[in-house]
Amino acid sequence: MLPLDSIGWSPDTASLRILDQRRLPAEAVFRELRGLTEVIDAIRTLAVRGAPAIGVAAAIGLAVALDADSHGDGARARQLLTGYGARLIAARPTAVNLAWAVERMLRRATEVADAELVQALRVEAEMIRQDDVRMCAEIGRHGLPLIQDGARVLTHCNAGALATAGMGTALAPIYAAHAAGRVVTVYADETRPLRQGARLTAWELSRAGINVTVLPDGAAASLIAQRHVDLVIVGADRITANGDVANKVGTYGVALAAQAHRIPFYVAAPWSTVDPATATGADIVIEHREGDELGELPPGVPAWNPAFDVTPRHLVSAYLTDRGLVSPPFV
Amino acid sequence: MLPLDSIGWSPDTASLRILDQRRLPAEAVFRELRGLTEVIDAIRTLAVRGAPAIGVAAAIGLAVALDADSHGDGARARQLLTGYGARLIAARPTAVNLAWAVERMLRRATEVADAELVQALRVEAEMIRQDDVRMCAEIGRHGLPLIQDGARVLTHCNAGALATAGMGTALAPIYAAHAAGRVVTVYADETRPLRQGARLTAWELSRAGINVTVLPDGAAASLIAQRHVDLVIVGADRITANGDVANKVGTYGVALAAQAHRIPFYVAAPWSTVDPATATGADIVIEHREGDELGELPPGVPAWNPAFDVTPRHLVSAYLTDRGLVSPPFV
Repeated sequence: MLPLDSIGWSPDTASLRILDQRRLPAEAVFRELRGLTEVIDAIRTLAVRGAPAIGVAAAIGLAVALDADSHGDGARARQLLTGYGARLIAARPTAVNLAWAVERMLRRATEVADAELVQALRVEAEMIRQDDVRMCAEIGRHGLPLIQDGARVLTHCNAGALATAGMGTALAPIYAAHAAGRVVTVYADETRPLRQGARLTAWELSRAGINVTVLPDGAAASLIAQRHVDLVIVGADRITANGDVANKVGTYGVALAAQAHRIPFYVAAPWSTVDPATATGADIVIEHREGDELGELPPGVPAWNPAFDVTPRHLVSAYLTDRGLVSPPFV
Repeated sequence: MLPLDSIGWSPDTASLRILDQRRLPAEAVFRELRGLTEVIDAIRTLAVRGAPAIGVAAAIGLAVALDADSHGDGARARQLLTGYGARLIAARPTAVNLAWAVERMLRRATEVADAELVQALRVEAEMIRQDDVRMCAEIGRHGLPLIQDGARVLTHCNAGALATAGMGTALAPIYAAHAAGRVVTVYADETRPLRQGARLTAWELSRAGINVTVLPDGAAASLIAQRHVDLVIVGADRITANGDVANKVGTYGVALAAQAHRIPFYVAAPWSTVDPATATGADIVIEHREGDELGELPPGVPAWNPAFDVTPRHLVSAYLTDRGLVSPPFV
């Protein structure tokens, strides 16, 4: 089966084309979005999620919306640009890649004349998409030696093709090993509360013909204790200067279990995830989300529902990036 | 508020009275069961759950069903007894307390004449219930010194009033501390896949006026890392001769996090949970359950869904039983 292409252009290139992740795993519904409001809605409602994927969706969405709304008038496109960019960034204010992609588009706009503006932004958006595809492929290439034939890999959340325009970050070495003819078995933590492992990672791997089994988050430690896992690979939302890793909540517990049973724990992420300006994990502000994500609770009972946790540097065996395996400190 | 009485007799003592746990936390519905088929159905469908509670329900259910069906004919009651007992035991064949309670009833039956049989079994069932209430109270009494005023306690699954005829095992010291006027804050792991922490532990503690907050299982390690927890107390399904502990899946990961951050990890259980005939945790056969408990998965994707895990002896700070704090080896 061809690699999954979850974010890109419609066949006529007039629209952003996304796989609607809210409908997975029940249905794989592609949607074509052209209006800015539709694009913002897709980002806000998590139809598109995953930091790299959000950036690519915002860039393509900005280009197609400007193209549609300016009716060939480059001066009009430039008038609309700043407001459109600000509205996109506000869709998920904590998504660093979203702001980064929009700002790259705005910078490009300053370099061209009105008559070339829309076409230049369409090209820039496609370059952002291609950069993301290439980043994933590089992580896969550098990570391939980590995945032996017959390897059993545990992962948490979704850092795969659904989170990027390419073949993912944590899952890239797995796709690369599968493409190289190696047999790989993946264990996917369910990843409460939003079940990205059960819904997304399991869906995209099984679609690609890769063996995948889902387990409750609480079962990961005993899966490792029973020697069913050879290595762990997870993604990262931010990597601090000293090597601490913010990632989806539950990652830290998996890292503790991996250490207790002496199996490697790898973090895979684009080099852009490394944030030398943040010294340690203690300096990261963790987003706390609404308790209703946990489903039904007794009346009046609150939830403690952080989106991320921090895995300290000493639990990480290696950092796998598009620049290869890297080591802290990152300065 | 009075202690929760989840298992007992109807006011006229003609029926088994249970709190239907399938309806929690949405509704607290008590049901009165008199027919054997109703009792078996309640056990099989988890309207009653928790090892001690199942034993008490089976004993009272057996007594009331025999009373109803023998119409005052003691010889008829004795004819029915063995078959009724076998049907009860078959309702959940792996529940050790269920078989133990039924066998205690059958033993008592051999000691009395036909004319006294039904009344003797009613008394025996009530003694089984009272023994369970007393066991819980003793665990609470011995555990009280562990819970200082202001203590923040993390627990997993439900080993509370809903799992026993009394005030629970893991939750008994918490109820005791609350009754002694100490402020206690409890963090309850959601406990996937069946959410006993979110549905049951949170319900019974909030009903009793005890502060309780629910968290996803994957968040427990970071809750501990952020120093929000002073101690962990969990229940046990079986404790082996060397001190290894089988309990609800997810317990082991919590124990690893407690060790990493040097907070005490206590196991609370009736002394009858100690099984000197089983040498170590490696000798325990772990029940694996159906994947559909995890909710929607992509078509064809299997689940790894063990009901229990094993926490090794070296991670347990102390074993809290109705006989006090005990130490392995248990011989």
